Amino acid sequence: MSTTEAAPSVADDALALSSAHISPGLVAKLEAAKTAARVVATANADLKNRALQAVADAVRAEAPRIVAANDLDLAAGRENGLSDGLQDRLRLDTARLDGLAKATELIASLTDPVGEALRGRTLPNGLQLTQVRVPFGVVGAIYEARPNVTIDIAALALKSGNVAVLRGGSAAENTNRVLVDVLQEALASVGLPRETVQTIDEFGRQGATELMRARGYVDVLIPRGSSQLIDAVVRESKVPVIETGAGVVHVFLDESADEQWSIDIVSNAKVQRPSVCNALETLLVHEAAAPRLLPLVLSALRAQGVTLHADEATRAIFPDAVPATDDDWATEYMSLDLSVKVVSGIDEAMAHIDRYSTHHTESIITNDLRNTERFLAEVDSAVVMVNASTRFTDGGEFGFGAEVGISTQKLHARGPMGLPELTSSKWIVRGSGQVRG
Amino acid sequence: MSTTEAAPSVADDALALSSAHISPGLVAKLEAAKTAARVVATANADLKNRALQAVADAVRAEAPRIVAANDLDLAAGRENGLSDGLQDRLRLDTARLDGLAKATELIASLTDPVGEALRGRTLPNGLQLTQVRVPFGVVGAIYEARPNVTIDIAALALKSGNVAVLRGGSAAENTNRVLVDVLQEALASVGLPRETVQTIDEFGRQGATELMRARGYVDVLIPRGSSQLIDAVVRESKVPVIETGAGVVHVFLDESADEQWSIDIVSNAKVQRPSVCNALETLLVHEAAAPRLLPLVLSALRAQGVTLHADEATRAIFPDAVPATDDDWATEYMSLDLSVKVVSGIDEAMAHIDRYSTHHTESIITNDLRNTERFLAEVDSAVVMVNASTRFTDGGEFGFGAEVGISTQKLHARGPMGLPELTSSKWIVRGSGQVRG
Repeated sequence: MSTTEAAPSVADDALALSSAHISPGLVAKLEAAKTAARVVATANADLKNRALQAVADAVRAEAPRIVAANDLDLAAGRENGLSDGLQDRLRLDTARLDGLAKATELIASLTDPVGEALRGRTLPNGLQLTQVRVPFGVVGAIYEARPNVTIDIAALALKSGNVAVLRGGSAAENTNRVLVDVLQEALASVGLPRETVQTIDEFGRQGATELMRARGYVDVLIPRGSSQLIDAVVRESKVPVIETGAGVVHVFLDESADEQWSIDIVSNAKVQRPSVCNALETLLVHEAAAPRLLPLVLSALRAQGVTLHADEATRAIFPDAVPATDDDWATEYMSLDLSVKVVSGIDEAMAHIDRYSTHHTESIITNDLRNTERFLAEVDSAVVMVNASTRFTDGGEFGFGAEVGISTQKLHARGPMGLPELTSSKWIVRGSGQVRG
Repeated sequence: MSTTEAAPSVADDALALSSAHISPGLVAKLEAAKTAARVVATANADLKNRALQAVADAVRAEAPRIVAANDLDLAAGRENGLSDGLQDRLRLDTARLDGLAKATELIASLTDPVGEALRGRTLPNGLQLTQVRVPFGVVGAIYEARPNVTIDIAALALKSGNVAVLRGGSAAENTNRVLVDVLQEALASVGLPRETVQTIDEFGRQGATELMRARGYVDVLIPRGSSQLIDAVVRESKVPVIETGAGVVHVFLDESADEQWSIDIVSNAKVQRPSVCNALETLLVHEAAAPRLLPLVLSALRAQGVTLHADEATRAIFPDAVPATDDDWATEYMSLDLSVKVVSGIDEAMAHIDRYSTHHTESIITNDLRNTERFLAEVDSAVVMVNASTRFTDGGEFGFGAEVGISTQKLHARGPMGLPELTSSKWIVRGSGQVRG
């Protein structure tokens, strides 16, 4: 913009960048996605909702076929030594499929975000300005061995007027192939393009790499999975990315914390599902409350099989806890392990969180109003809570029907991502011959 | 998230990535920015507005010192053969400084975006959810030889509770050094940290490169300048980027276009300030209107010194126009050049725009309601207009006081970026002991 010479066209450049690095088969799929995106972007809510109902019906009707494909992936996973936690995330049974169908129906019942007027005014010169929500266009997702994500993202993308290009990971390849087939049949049954949802699993790891370079084809890319995966996508992608996931999540038991709430919330946050990102990893305890609360809370955790990694002050009360290393404070265990530290008060608690948190979710347990407001205002995380379990950071729990992921970045989306997070906006200007003076 | 082993901490990883590639002097400035960000994030609107008024007063009071520094840069620019267009963008005189002071006062008068409740509800289990606007934290900007951007971005960043780290380009180094000094004095006069605004010009090009790698320090990076600059930042940055700028902007004269509006809008869009991104680059004309409109519109442009790059159909009417090449359709001239093409109707016009536009701004001149609604709905650009000059795509014109830039991406911000575009959000959850079932 600052030269008066002809600058190279960004449009051309984007296309050059794209096609230079992408195999022809994938380009064909991305072109088909762009074409489908034009249709889906202008589909009205009635049509999109009928498609979602067709998806829900098909997921239930085709459950035997989906479960059979999933059994193949599970068997291969066991053979390859997949951990119990990963096998659990890979598994789709009839009950889970019914849950996915219900989530799809809930998404159908939500208000269509497309077309929502976000801001607007008439300027002094008579120009009428309106900022309206529009779909992104093509949403890419790269994820690992969690086939429920295929349905969740496809349903949210469709409702928000987008098409989805999915790379679901080799461990779930059989399941995803059948799921995408079921989705495409359902879309076609109401007259929407089959290419509204596509898998690129057949292109393997190279396909994922090429998707990250598909500027001009992919409007936003969402990685969901291990922190290694997310890191790689954030570093390598030339397409705008929304970073999701990793959670070094904290609970701080303040001096005035209620005993029963402390036991219940810490147990729930740590034990209910330790392998997910909103599970608790580090417990901070006010030193004045430690003698009162730690025996109760840690005994309850112990009884549920939790291994404690504790600082000196905690070990004075629980001598057989494992001594915590500096690494422990920065670790997302995703297992029945917990770091425990006694702090001098809310300032040390917030300083510790500032240093070690991944800024996903933190909760304070307290009855002190001033500390509540300070914690909620000053802790710089996607979700900050008072007197609640961190496990509530979830699109389903927040009422979004499902979630595309939980954004831990600040750009565009933060926290659980539902329908509005899958939209962009555009400005519409209506004039009557106005020119700039 | 999908392994049960301890995953490497993202927090640690981000810091490792940052410090490994950044010179100690720059790290010190970035640490100071983070510290200042905590103060500015919680400053109330009264304090921020007093700071903005102090900035406006100082810009006026220190005009002689700023203009003297600017004269040094202009002299060096002339010696280095800087084009007239670039010299115009580099120039700050008393009148322009007064304009910047006025814009700063207007920004002070706008509602503080921080703390705005965006969404909220009470869940069936009694949890109270509120999504509130929060500052990004540290906003980085890389731009070229436009010292007004220093004031614009600093003022918008401050009002939205952010700190700014600025790399303003060597051609304006003297001007920017004085401007940042003036800004810092004004900030200090109301008790805000001087590090609310910092320049990193002293680190040269290497500083810009390091800023792109400063994950964990910089929350969002905004490049503003030539398409080469923007492209380089988008490709190389490890920090989230908002892409701004390049505009291959179209006006489509539909069959029913008003003659006077066509002449006025096309002239204004092309001629008023050809070196900026919202200036017109390609004129499309409905074939049925070409005999009526082209002679009027193109004669008016010619009289104003515009060089025409035209297709065959246009050259049948204006034989001495330069024949347009395929490159012309994709070129942002930023000069008194214009591509002209006759199309068969709105479908060909929109297909041409889809192919060659940088999705910045497009305008249709028409009296046809159906074509208006199709154009506004189907053209996928940041700003779509009917019967208005594309020159209105501007934060000042939209009432934002100033602009950080004009986003041509779909993630986070699209079109002119004002205060809300410099904010993120966070979710606040208030409970009373809730755990997840």
